[in-house]
Amino acid sequence: MEHSFVLKRRVAFHETDMAGLAHFSNFFRWMEEAEHGFLDSIGLAPVVKDRATFWGWPRSKASCDYKEPLRFGDAFDCELVVKQIKMKSVVYRFRFTRSDDSAANRLIAKGEMTSVYAKFDVEKDTMFALDLSEELLSRIEEMPGAAVVGSA
Amino acid sequence: MEHSFVLKRRVAFHETDMAGLAHFSNFFRWMEEAEHGFLDSIGLAPVVKDRATFWGWPRSKASCDYKEPLRFGDAFDCELVVKQIKMKSVVYRFRFTRSDDSAANRLIAKGEMTSVYAKFDVEKDTMFALDLSEELLSRIEEMPGAAVVGSA
Amino acid sequence: MEHSFVLKRRVAFHETDMAGLAHFSNFFRWMEEAEHGFLDSIGLAPVVKDRATFWGWPRSKASCDYKEPLRFGDAFDCELVVKQIKMKSVVYRFRFTRSDDSAANRLIAKGEMTSVYAKFDVEKDTMFALDLSEELLSRIEEMPGAAVVGSA
Amino acid sequence: MEHSFVLKRRVAFHETDMAGLAHFSNFFRWMEEAEHGFLDSIGLAPVVKDRATFWGWPRSKASCDYKEPLRFGDAFDCELVVKQIKMKSVVYRFRFTRSDDSAANRLIAKGEMTSVYAKFDVEKDTMFALDLSEELLSRIEEMPGAAVVGSA
Repeated sequence: MEHSFVLKRRVAFHETDMAGLAHFSNFFRWMEEAEHGFLDSIGLAPVVKDRATFWGWPRSKASCDYKEPLRFGDAFDCELVVKQIKMKSVVYRFRFTRSDDSAANRLIAKGEMTSVYAKFDVEKDTMFALDLSEELLSRIEEMPGAAVVGSA
Repeated sequence: MEHSFVLKRRVAFHETDMAGLAHFSNFFRWMEEAEHGFLDSIGLAPVVKDRATFWGWPRSKASCDYKEPLRFGDAFDCELVVKQIKMKSVVYRFRFTRSDDSAANRLIAKGEMTSVYAKFDVEKDTMFALDLSEELLSRIEEMPGAAVVGSA
Repeated sequence: MEHSFVLKRRVAFHETDMAGLAHFSNFFRWMEEAEHGFLDSIGLAPVVKDRATFWGWPRSKASCDYKEPLRFGDAFDCELVVKQIKMKSVVYRFRFTRSDDSAANRLIAKGEMTSVYAKFDVEKDTMFALDLSEELLSRIEEMPGAAVVGSA
Repeated sequence: MEHSFVLKRRVAFHETDMAGLAHFSNFFRWMEEAEHGFLDSIGLAPVVKDRATFWGWPRSKASCDYKEPLRFGDAFDCELVVKQIKMKSVVYRFRFTRSDDSAANRLIAKGEMTSVYAKFDVEKDTMFALDLSEELLSRIEEMPGAAVVGSA
C-alpha cells in the first residue's frame, strides 16, 4: 500500500518561454508524469488496453499555485501524495521543491489533481467513470492525514 | 473599459493524446491565448520590452474543472471575464463551450487564472510584482458582479 | 483539384523559448496545421474513423531549414504546396514568410514533410501504409512543376 | 574530446497523439535533449548568460526519418554523434533505437540537426553566429568517419 512518490526532473530547454521561465502549463505535465511514476511504482499501468477498450485516468480537476519560478536546467522534485480516494477517482496533491544542493527543498509550487478512473470504448467513442477496482484499492491508500488537511 | 473576450479555436492534432482527447494541459495554454487576445483587444501588449527589461504577466494560480472532453477538430469558444482586479494582479475566469452548430454552448470546462503584473530584469535575473499601472487600470474593469460571485 | 494552401498564424507565448524565439520544434506542428488545413480545404478529413479503425497520415520524413527567427506575436504565413504524389504518400513543401506589413514576404523557413496514407487497427495495434484512394487522387494534384524542382 | 552521447528516455503520455503514437514533433525535442546532455557531458553549458547577453545554439536545419512508431511508455535510446564541426556550427546525427529488452536496438528513427553557435543581445534584440570558441573546439570532436559518411 503506497501513498507517495517523488519524480526527479530538470527543466528542459523546450519547456522554457521567452520570460526565461518554465512555462506554467508544464507543471501540469509534470504532475501527470509523477502520477504515472506513482502508478508504475505500485504495479498499475497508467493505461490498460484490451482490443478496442482502454482504461485510464482523465482529469476532472487540476490546479497549481506558483510560488517561485523554475528556469532552464533547474533540478526539482515533484512529490505526489494521495490526498483522497473517492468512489471513482483519486485526488493527488503535489509539492514542487528545488533539489539543487544550494537551495534544496525550497518550495516552487503546490498542485492538486483529480483523476477519474474511466473506461474508453474506441468503437463507440464513449468514455465513462468506473468504480475503482478492488485491485486498485488494494494497492493505493490515502496519505495518513492527507484527506482531512486543507487543500494545497 | 473592457472586461471580456472570446477566443475562437479548434483542437489541433498535436494537442490530442492517445486517449483521443485534447490533453488537459492544453486548456491552460488556451487560457493564456485568450488572456493575450483580451490584452491585445484593449490595446495592451502582453509583453512590453525596453532594452533588457520586460513587463509581463506570470501566473500565481491556475485551475481548471473539466466537464466534457474535446477531440481533434472540435470547435470551441474560450470566454474570458475579468473576475477581480487586485493591487498587483488580475484574476480571470474562463468558460470553454462548444461552438459547433450541433452542440453550441455546451459547457466543456471552467477555469481560473491569476496573472501578476511583473517586471523582469534580464541582467540581474530578477522578477518582482508591480502595482497595476494607471494606464492598465484605465482600460480594464471587473465584469459586473464577477468579483462577488463564487469562483469557477 | 488543389495543390496549395496558406495557413495564417501568429506565434503564441507558449511557443517561445528562453532565447526569445519560437522553438524550432513548433515549425513541425505548424506544417501539420497547414497540412490539415489543406486537407479540410479539399473536403478530406485529416483523420477518418470507423469503429476501431482509423485512416490518417503519419509522417515518414520531416525537415526544416531555418533562415530567420520568429518571436512572440509575429504574424506569418505557412504556405503548403504538394510537391509529389507517390503510391502511398504525399510530399509537401512549406514556405514560412512574414505577413506583418513592415516585412511582408520575408522568408523565415522552408520545410518538407512526407505523409503516408495509413490505416490503424486499434484492436490489433497495427498500422500499415495504403495505396492512395481514388477519391483522394481525384482531389489533390501536384503543384505544377513542383515535383521536378529540387527539394526545399 | 567527446563525440557521442546517449539519452535514455521513455515516451510520456502528454507526448502521444490520438493515433496512439508519440507525436512526430517530439523527436526534435528529444534531439535537443540529447544535444544538451552531450554538451553537459563535456562540461559546456547549453546556454551561457552574462548580464543581458546569451550564447546558445539555435538550429539552422533539422530533419528526421521515421521508421517505426513509438507509443506511450516505450523505452528508447537517442544516440547523438558529432557528424561535422564547421566554422560556426556543429552537425549532429541521431539514431533512435528501442531499449526495451524484447526489441533492443531496433531502429525507430534517424535524425540530423545543425546547431549554430550564436550570441544573443537581449537589449538590441540581435542574434548572430560566432566562430566556435577555442574552448569548445578543445572539448568536442567529430565522430571518427562521421563527416565523410552520407547523411542520416
